[in-house]
Amino acid sequence: MMGKVRCNISISLDGYAAGPNQSLADPLGEGAERLHDWVVGLEAWRREHGMEGGEVNASTAVIEESIANVGAGIMGRNMFGGGRGPWGDEPWKGWWGEDPPFHTPIFVLTHHPREPLTLSDTTFVFVTDGIESALERARAAAGDKDVTINGGAATIRQYLAAGLLDELELHVTPVILGSGERLLDDIGAVKFEQIRAIEAPGVTHLKYRVVR
Amino acid sequence: MMGKVRCNISISLDGYAAGPNQSLADPLGEGAERLHDWVVGLEAWRREHGMEGGEVNASTAVIEESIANVGAGIMGRNMFGGGRGPWGDEPWKGWWGEDPPFHTPIFVLTHHPREPLTLSDTTFVFVTDGIESALERARAAAGDKDVTINGGAATIRQYLAAGLLDELELHVTPVILGSGERLLDDIGAVKFEQIRAIEAPGVTHLKYRVVR
Repeated sequence: MMGKVRCNISISLDGYAAGPNQSLADPLGEGAERLHDWVVGLEAWRREHGMEGGEVNASTAVIEESIANVGAGIMGRNMFGGGRGPWGDEPWKGWWGEDPPFHTPIFVLTHHPREPLTLSDTTFVFVTDGIESALERARAAAGDKDVTINGGAATIRQYLAAGLLDELELHVTPVILGSGERLLDDIGAVKFEQIRAIEAPGVTHLKYRVVR
Repeated sequence: MMGKVRCNISISLDGYAAGPNQSLADPLGEGAERLHDWVVGLEAWRREHGMEGGEVNASTAVIEESIANVGAGIMGRNMFGGGRGPWGDEPWKGWWGEDPPFHTPIFVLTHHPREPLTLSDTTFVFVTDGIESALERARAAAGDKDVTINGGAATIRQYLAAGLLDELELHVTPVILGSGERLLDDIGAVKFEQIRAIEAPGVTHLKYRVVR
C-alpha cells in the first residue's frame, strides 16, 4: 500500500506562507517568523529539534501526527539552503545544521546537479529532473510510509497545481502580513474537502483532502 | 454599556469574499455562491429568511450567535442593491425583497442622498458622510446592542483599516476561487487575537478580536 503525499504549513490569516523580501539572511521574509510563534514553544516541536522542555497543548497531537509515518520529504532549493546557480566545489550544507530535524531522505528540487549530502540520519538527494521525478524517488524511498512536501510555498503550489498532493494541513495564525508569498495563488482548479479543524492556542489547524 | 462592532462573513480558502466579475445579475461574482453552501440548508438560516425546515449542526449555534443581540447594521451600496450614481425618482428597493432578513435599522453607505426606506421591520437609512458617521448613527440606533458590518468586502475592509471593528468571524470554506475580491487585502497593520474556532460540516468558523 502506498502512503499519502501530504503537506502542513503555517500561514497568515491573509494567506501568506512567507513575508516580503526573502533573502539568505531572512529566509522566511520580513515578519514571517510570527507565523511560527504557536509552534516553537511546544514540547513536541522542541523534542523533534533536539531540545528539552516546552508546552503541551491542543497543537501537540497535530505536530505528532504530522511527524509520524513519514518516510521521505521533498523541498525546494530555497528551503534547503537558498542561493542560485551551480553549487560550486565546496557547497554549503544548508540551513539545517549538523543534525537536521527530518530523519528521512529529503529530495531537494534544483536545476543544478549535486552529490547526495548526509548529515546525521538525514540524507539530502538533489533532483534536477522535476517535481514528478522527485515524487517518484521519494515514494520509492518511503515505501508504504507517507511523503511530505516540506516547502517552500512555491514548491507546495507546484505539487498542488499538478494534482500530486493528497492532504494539506494549514496552521492558520492570527497574523496579518499584508504582502509576501501567498500559498494558494495560481494553483488552478484544485478541489478541497475539509477533513477537520482543531482549535489550539494562537492557531487553528485546518486539514483538507484534495479531491480528484 | 456600548455594544460591539462585529462582522461575520464567508470566505474561500484562498481568502476571497466575492468572485470575479461582480454585476447586478451576479452580485457575489462568479463561483462565489459556493461560499454559502454551508449555510443555505441550515434551519437557523432558513428560519431567519422566513423558510421552514433545514439542517441543525455545529454551525447552528454560530448562526444564532451572529444574529442575537444585533441592534443595527451597516452595508455598502453594492450590498444593498448595487448600481451607481444618483438613485433617481423611483429608486429600486434593493436585493432584499419585501421582508428583509435584518429586522433592525440598516445604514447604507452611498455618495448619493436618498430618503429612508422601510420594508417590513427593516428600515434602510442612506448615509452620505462616511463610515464614521454611519457607525455613530448605527450605535445610536443600536443602544446597548451590537452593530454588525454586513458587507460587502470593501466596506468591511474600510472599517478594519480604520480600527473601528471589534470582532471578525470568518466562515472559512474549502472553496478555491482563484480570483475576485479579497477580504483582508490592504487593511494595514491590524492585529488580531484568536477567540475560538468551531469545526462544522463544510466550513470552519474562526473568530478573532481586533486588538488596539
